[in-house]
Amino acid sequence: MVKYSKEWKEVDYNTLFQALIDEMRSQKVGYYYLPKSSIKLFEKIEYIKKTREFKNIVIIGVGGSSLGTKAIYSALKPLYQNYKELIFLENPDPLEIKVKLPKINKESLFLVISKSGNTIETISIFKVILEQLNIDLKKDSDRFIIITDKESSLDKFANKNKISTFFIPKNVGGRFSVLSAVGIVPLELAGFNTKNILIGAKEFLDRFLNKKETHLLEKAIFFAKNSSQIKVNILFVYSSFLEEFTKWYIQLWAESLGKINKDGKRVGLSPISLIGSIDQHSFLQLIMEGPRDKSVTFLKVENLDDKIKIPNLNLDFLENSNFANGYSLNTLLNSECDATFESLKSNNIPVDMITLDKISEENIGELIIYYELLTSALGILLNVNTYNQPGVELGKKILKNKFIKGQLN
Amino acid sequence: MVKYSKEWKEVDYNTLFQALIDEMRSQKVGYYYLPKSSIKLFEKIEYIKKTREFKNIVIIGVGGSSLGTKAIYSALKPLYQNYKELIFLENPDPLEIKVKLPKINKESLFLVISKSGNTIETISIFKVILEQLNIDLKKDSDRFIIITDKESSLDKFANKNKISTFFIPKNVGGRFSVLSAVGIVPLELAGFNTKNILIGAKEFLDRFLNKKETHLLEKAIFFAKNSSQIKVNILFVYSSFLEEFTKWYIQLWAESLGKINKDGKRVGLSPISLIGSIDQHSFLQLIMEGPRDKSVTFLKVENLDDKIKIPNLNLDFLENSNFANGYSLNTLLNSECDATFESLKSNNIPVDMITLDKISEENIGELIIYYELLTSALGILLNVNTYNQPGVELGKKILKNKFIKGQLN
Repeated sequence: MVKYSKEWKEVDYNTLFQALIDEMRSQKVGYYYLPKSSIKLFEKIEYIKKTREFKNIVIIGVGGSSLGTKAIYSALKPLYQNYKELIFLENPDPLEIKVKLPKINKESLFLVISKSGNTIETISIFKVILEQLNIDLKKDSDRFIIITDKESSLDKFANKNKISTFFIPKNVGGRFSVLSAVGIVPLELAGFNTKNILIGAKEFLDRFLNKKETHLLEKAIFFAKNSSQIKVNILFVYSSFLEEFTKWYIQLWAESLGKINKDGKRVGLSPISLIGSIDQHSFLQLIMEGPRDKSVTFLKVENLDDKIKIPNLNLDFLENSNFANGYSLNTLLNSECDATFESLKSNNIPVDMITLDKISEENIGELIIYYELLTSALGILLNVNTYNQPGVELGKKILKNKFIKGQLN
Repeated sequence: MVKYSKEWKEVDYNTLFQALIDEMRSQKVGYYYLPKSSIKLFEKIEYIKKTREFKNIVIIGVGGSSLGTKAIYSALKPLYQNYKELIFLENPDPLEIKVKLPKINKESLFLVISKSGNTIETISIFKVILEQLNIDLKKDSDRFIIITDKESSLDKFANKNKISTFFIPKNVGGRFSVLSAVGIVPLELAGFNTKNILIGAKEFLDRFLNKKETHLLEKAIFFAKNSSQIKVNILFVYSSFLEEFTKWYIQLWAESLGKINKDGKRVGLSPISLIGSIDQHSFLQLIMEGPRDKSVTFLKVENLDDKIKIPNLNLDFLENSNFANGYSLNTLLNSECDATFESLKSNNIPVDMITLDKISEENIGELIIYYELLTSALGILLNVNTYNQPGVELGKKILKNKFIKGQLN
């Protein structure tokens, strides 16, 4: 169960709602259909589970191919006793690869994930793995799974080498793909209950389509209306294991909304992630006293774990801290969240609060579709193409030219 | 060796330089003296090394008491074969504590770090540890070390319980304290060469005081002059192991500069950290096409590890990525850094580049003092008290009141 605080004044959201419905019905944007359509993936996943043996799963992919999976994996891990480790190879940082290599071996299953099949980091790391582990693709094709677009170069490569493939629907962009095979295949193979993630997403989506979650539209309208003044959106999560979730949010928000819009105007909001209560001792000062250009969304989990209590110890000279004695860490952490929320609100800084009753597959699924819908809504209001990323092409061209001309570092 | 790109037009920096010298000579701000004075810590650290046995080190502390140590620990770990693990207990997140508890046992040495001694998270976690491990302070005081201000409540507690203490100089604030006992004691006990960190910091400081590193002053002047337009400062590090360093930078920047200044104006710049090349697939789009309110400092390491090469494999249908064949991952990563730098520069986005020849103790020490001096310089120009944090007090008061009145979550 997820609750959303209602901090917005009522506005007319019907036009925005209709625009989202139109976008969905056009079938140009496909992520709306994933909570339902991804159910079809399970038959093949089950077959792989039965026919392949592996101890851990190596995900070779970056950006939209890894961030969502990582977010869910980090959030759910503490709830599970038994699961297969996911090892993410995203960055061609040689020190990082070196540190991770010892865990990667003959008992690893490799998932190579790239929508286009042209991601230079992914293909280069893939080649490094083939060589470092001395893998012969002709013999060892069943150690790999490829997740890509149908008829992409990576799909053709997979066909030629008899590697199993899962497809990403063509109308689903990388950063909106976590509920497609991109996230569902690795997480289900690792032993997480991904059906409940899809159920959580679907239930929220259904309520949204029945106009029962209109706070989302009101929030988008508030952000868009104030976007010339409030340019920084902070997601302040009170749970260490939701840090990766904030990185998924940052990609979604930054890459979807940071655009030259259809009127030729530079728009977009800077996403920032904070972890409570740690960042109360860091970034909070700037929010309180710095420029009034920020909004803060708090994300609180009511029941993380109630078992660890602060004992009733009276330590000499440290009596100042006795007020929390006898309470659980859970109560301390969540009360810190509430106190920080109130201190910002009393300073007229725009805040809202999302409250999960607990970390669960359903709640994570709901959060994902919530942020995707919020991003789409804001994209419509900012008049951008939410689903492309033309700004990153120049760097790719310059990079390729450096190699071709030998002007290397 | 660290190189700094010179992207600033020459400006008159003498007034700013003199203001920093005055601040230093006033002795009101003490971090300037740490690279020299912290040498005195080693005798006592050596004694502890000889007289105590421990397998890992648990750091109980948050904010300025942990971020700097974590930054150095993460950066240096991949260079060392043998070191003692540092376990950080910063967040009263019960799930996180639960996950970390199994590693904490009779062979752990505990460092309780708090400047004031009143940090509610730190003291509460300390109490939890005392109970969970069934520790009797009367018998087990040599399993603890306390790092705090002289005559703080925590110092008095340590005295009463015969716990060894190290002091933080009174004129050194938490977020400027990493080169004091706060960082040096745990890192040296863990087996890292912290003398070289101090040497690296001292050498840069000496050159700075001899006006040989004036690019730093020019950069501060550029940031201050443009602070009404450029409100977001991005640190884009091309090394996965420098991620924790960016969190230290974020605290330093946000908490020092985010203030109501002496003219009553809200000032401060939003720090954001990105990891290359991962975040080229995330935040980069927003920098390229979004609002022109950002500057980007790139941090590149010339030699991370040159041994892992991308093999000369020609994979069918993936020939598009062959341009990197035969090169090291190191070359790929750093060329991505250069290409991204150039793509932003050609779009007239303010950029500069800090280049380390390698990750080393000296270079990390230099980076730390560089950022501290830059922050102090900018603090003078923005006319703030760089060293306090009045904005976080309200939340603490509200928290305490919630407990006292029983209005808890």
